[in-house]
Formats: sequence, C-alpha cells, structure tokens
Amino acid sequence: MTKARRILLASRPLGEPSAANFSMDEIDLPEAAEGEVTVRVRYLSLDPYMRGRMSDAKSYAAPVPVGGIMEGETVCEVMKSRHNDFSPGDIVKGRTGWVSHAVIKGDLLRLVDTHGAPVSTALGVLGMPGFTAWSGLKFIGHPKSGETVAVAAASGPVGSMVGQLARLQGARAVGIAGGPDKCAFVKDELGFDAVIDHRSKELAHDLQNACLDGIDVYFENVGGHVWDAVLPLLNQFGRVPVCGLVAHYNGGGLGETDRLPATMSAILRRSLTVRGFIQTEFAQHFDEFLQDVGPLVADGKIKYKEDIVDGLEQAPEALIGMLAGKNFGKLVVKVS
Amino acid sequence: MTKARRILLASRPLGEPSAANFSMDEIDLPEAAEGEVTVRVRYLSLDPYMRGRMSDAKSYAAPVPVGGIMEGETVCEVMKSRHNDFSPGDIVKGRTGWVSHAVIKGDLLRLVDTHGAPVSTALGVLGMPGFTAWSGLKFIGHPKSGETVAVAAASGPVGSMVGQLARLQGARAVGIAGGPDKCAFVKDELGFDAVIDHRSKELAHDLQNACLDGIDVYFENVGGHVWDAVLPLLNQFGRVPVCGLVAHYNGGGLGETDRLPATMSAILRRSLTVRGFIQTEFAQHFDEFLQDVGPLVADGKIKYKEDIVDGLEQAPEALIGMLAGKNFGKLVVKVS
Repeated sequence: MTKARRILLASRPLGEPSAANFSMDEIDLPEAAEGEVTVRVRYLSLDPYMRGRMSDAKSYAAPVPVGGIMEGETVCEVMKSRHNDFSPGDIVKGRTGWVSHAVIKGDLLRLVDTHGAPVSTALGVLGMPGFTAWSGLKFIGHPKSGETVAVAAASGPVGSMVGQLARLQGARAVGIAGGPDKCAFVKDELGFDAVIDHRSKELAHDLQNACLDGIDVYFENVGGHVWDAVLPLLNQFGRVPVCGLVAHYNGGGLGETDRLPATMSAILRRSLTVRGFIQTEFAQHFDEFLQDVGPLVADGKIKYKEDIVDGLEQAPEALIGMLAGKNFGKLVVKVS
Repeated sequence: MTKARRILLASRPLGEPSAANFSMDEIDLPEAAEGEVTVRVRYLSLDPYMRGRMSDAKSYAAPVPVGGIMEGETVCEVMKSRHNDFSPGDIVKGRTGWVSHAVIKGDLLRLVDTHGAPVSTALGVLGMPGFTAWSGLKFIGHPKSGETVAVAAASGPVGSMVGQLARLQGARAVGIAGGPDKCAFVKDELGFDAVIDHRSKELAHDLQNACLDGIDVYFENVGGHVWDAVLPLLNQFGRVPVCGLVAHYNGGGLGETDRLPATMSAILRRSLTVRGFIQTEFAQHFDEFLQDVGPLVADGKIKYKEDIVDGLEQAPEALIGMLAGKNFGKLVVKVS
C-alpha cells in the first residue's frame, strides 16, 4: 500500500499566515480506478495566489476548505496508470495539491515538455508564472517598440519573464525588486535596462529617474506603495495588467488616506486601462506560449532562477517566507 | 464694429467654484482675416469637464489660463465668412468658448446637421455627450444582449444615452439618479428597466436589488460613494468605461479609509477592465455616430431632455449648479 503525506489547511489566517494554519497527515492511497493514474510528486510549485485560496473572501476561485488539502500544481512521475495516455515513468503536470503521492484522473494531467530544461521549469518559466507574464503582455499590455515597461517583483518568476519578453519586443524594461542581490540579478543577469530597489526611501524619485519617458505598461504584481510611485508616471493610454497584489494579500491599506480618488482620476485623465486577469482566461493559448518561449529558454535567451526547498514538510514555512518577500527566484518544493 | 461679451476665468477655485472665480468683459471684435469666419453664438454647452479646465492639475488637456476665456463648445450662426465652406446664415459648431461673438478659423468649424432636431441638440444628444456615451459603450463597454448596464447621472445627457443605447442592444439598463423627479424621468420617459435614487440611505441595498444578476458594464460618470455600491456587484469580466468623476472634481476623498485596496482586489479577483477615455480618442467615428443615432433621435426612439438657461451672464451660476447636481437634462446656455 502506498502512503501519501498531505498538508492541510488547519485554519484560515488573519493577516499573515503562520505554521499553525497548516497541519500534516498521512493516508493510505487508494488503488487507481479506470481512467485514473497513481503519481509520485517530484516538485510542488508555491505561488502568491495560494494566500487567496486560504481565505474565504469572494474570488474567482473557491477557497480551500478548512481541513482540505492545500491546492497547488505539481510535476509528478507516473507510478501506475489506468489511463491510455500515460505510462509508468512519464513526467506529468497536474493539480494534486500539497501531497507526496496522489491518485488523480488522467484527464486532468498533462505530459511535460520543457524543451530539454529541467522538469521543474514546467512550474515556473515554462509553466503558470511564465504563461501569466506572456499572456498578460500579449493580450493586455501589448508593449510596443520604444515603450517603457515596468514590473515589480522583477526577480520573481512572473516579473523576470515580463521584463525579458518586453525587451525581446523592443521595449525598455524597468524592474523593481527588494534588496541589492535581487536588483543585481535583475540588471546583470536578466538584462533589464534599469532596476529600482523598492526599499529605497526615494522610491518615487528613483523610479522617475529610471523612467524619463514615463511608463507605458505597468505589469502589476504587488500593489501597495509601489503603485503610488508608478501612478504619476503612467503615460496617456498606459496599460496596467493586474495579475497580483501580493502586498495586499495579508490585508490592510496604507494608512488613513483614501488613495482611490487619485487612482480613478489618473485613469480618467490619462485614458489608462487597468485590467485584472488570471492566466486561465487565456488557457487555449498555452501551446502557443510553449512554442514561442520554450526555444528561447532552451537557447538561454530567456533566463530564470529557481529557489528550491527540500521536503514537503518545508512548504508552509516557504510559502510564509515568500509572502514576506524572502524567496529569490521561482519557489519550488522538491518533494521527492 | 461688432462687440463680443466674454466670460473669463478670474481665479482658480479651491473646492467648489464660486461666482468670484469668473469675470466678464466686452471687446471689439477684429475683422475676419482670410480663412476666418465671424460668428454669433446661439448656444453654449456647459459640461462637467469644465471644472477640470479651471484647475491646473496635470490632465489630458491644458487648463484655461487665469484671465483666459472659459473654454466650451457652441452652436453659432455665421455672420461673415472668409472661408469657402461657410456662408452667412450657416449653423455651425465650434469651440469659441464662453462668448457672445467670435472670429474663428473656418477649419475649426463644422456644419451642424441634427436630422431635423433643434440645433441645440448638436451640443447634447447629437453632440459631445451623446458621442461620449456611444463611443464608451461601443469601444469599451460593448454590452451584450441580456447583460446589465448601470450608469449614474442617468438623467443627464451622457447617462440617458448610455441606458437607451444599452436597451437598444438588448441589455438591461439600470440608472442611478438624484431625487424623485429625475428618477421618474429615467424610468418613465427614458424607459430604463430600473432606477435607484443615489440619495437613498440604502443605496447599496437598492442597487443590489435592481441588479440581481450583477453588473456587467458600469459606465462611470460620477465616482464617489456610488462606486462603493457598484463595486461588489460587478461580474467577472465586467467593464468600466470611466468618462467622468464629477463627485471628485471639487476635491476630497470619502473620509479616512483607504478605498484603493478593495477596488484593486476586485479588479484582480473578477478580471475587471477599468478604462478611462475622452471622446476625442474616437473622433474619427463621429460621422458613424451621427448616422447611427441621428435617425433614432429623429424618430423619437432615443429621448433627450435639455435644461436651457437664458443669457451668457448666467453661465457661471449654471455651471456651479450643475457641479452640485442641480440641473436636470443637458445644460445649455441660450446666448442669443
């Protein structure tokens, strides 16, 4: 009998999640039924959206129930298959959640093709985060040659792809990241045109100096005080794909000033487009993304960084750290 | 020698404008040079955007300089013409500003065609406000049959057109207006499916009851507390053309709560599109608008209401009243 270790949502966090919001158990895995596949999880992706699923606020996706398995996407190896598309040893991607092993419908799995890159990239640069960047730029931001594209969390898996894709399209990429190591990586490794440290006391001033022609596309990953620095710089007809607001996920505004009128005024006065999106909206374009970006990753024209944590039991602490900005690169848990 | 009375911006308002922010003078009009036309103003349009031009905040348009003529669009009769396209007696539209007479380049004028409706409609239902409604729906809101379209200032020239066009496209129109007279007009005369009084203490509750399937398109004219009632009702992939924020024009937020995170969260969680626009962006479609909407107005399928004030000297008070919500229908000054 195969055992499966699982991490569950023990309680809903108020503000920042803590270890107490998670619990772990072990179960005997049932046998796969017809059409099902038994998998061993190799890598679990940790992503900011998971904070949203821990909450029961109205959202595009149902929350994880208290006592339920934490949701997440994984790369797995097939152990047994009762589905025609899969055989033992296949590497597949699926939403098994935070578990070591699972029995899952084969129709919910997808064979992994990473164009020769490590299979963990199917969770990062060639997975959901990379696709989020690509689709947000392609369908909402559509940067033009010579325009300026700014992105926060620029060393992260979405931000790093946004800037690199923007540059490949002839735009100028300005990154915002936290601390000297991440900033150096964004500028020197990823090749952004400029980078700003969001911990600077002169953030607004620094950003203005880095964006002397204003900002045409701001890819919104973070919200919070970075938005206040970006807002005055947005050019007429600027586009703001909103794919994340990690600064807001743990709750709270920025004090006692109502910042909404300034934002709405700028939207009106400068004919801005602010458009929220979830990559699933564009899921039918995923193969196009892989064909477009896969070779660029294989050739080293798009660079990426992974932050790999060892062991499923480390996942809660790693997620908590990521929400506080402590990871550096795409956060992945090596489960086995 | 023709005399021209003019209304000037005497000083910039802080908060609500007052009569002291305006002054009036009279000048001798110069003779028209080659290519110019001398016109007598018949109607001056008063519109919320004028509050913006009185301020020197960064905007899509330069402010009126202190001591300069208040900007505005007028319908005029040609008195003398030194431009081949115009002859005395022609009815034309132009941006002469708040004046009784003007000498203006013929290239900046446009012959008025109102399909048999009064010429003042070239400033309202068949002019900039009507075109604002039409272009905002056509290019940003694009309501589909069966969807719900909500609009505030629904008895006004933009709002009344938004709801009527939405209904002609098979959508449900929900109006928000101030007071029983305006509400009755919106429901009974304009034929909206439902109307809400924004002065109600139960605004959010009333709006929710009127929009049981949520809101797919909110045409934003006003901002302020109406937005707070609309926000929770916006459906996934909802669209918000932002064409005005009259509640903000006189400055100030809504107290000491930061309302921005809730708005950004909703944009993200529900994949909303919030898009500011000025009708000039779509100016090349103005003839298409006239061809589309002119016959509907002529046939009485689109209704409109004008609020006509007599005498140029009444314009400042009328504008101040409009910004406080006191007018009822498209506000036009009959100048001569």
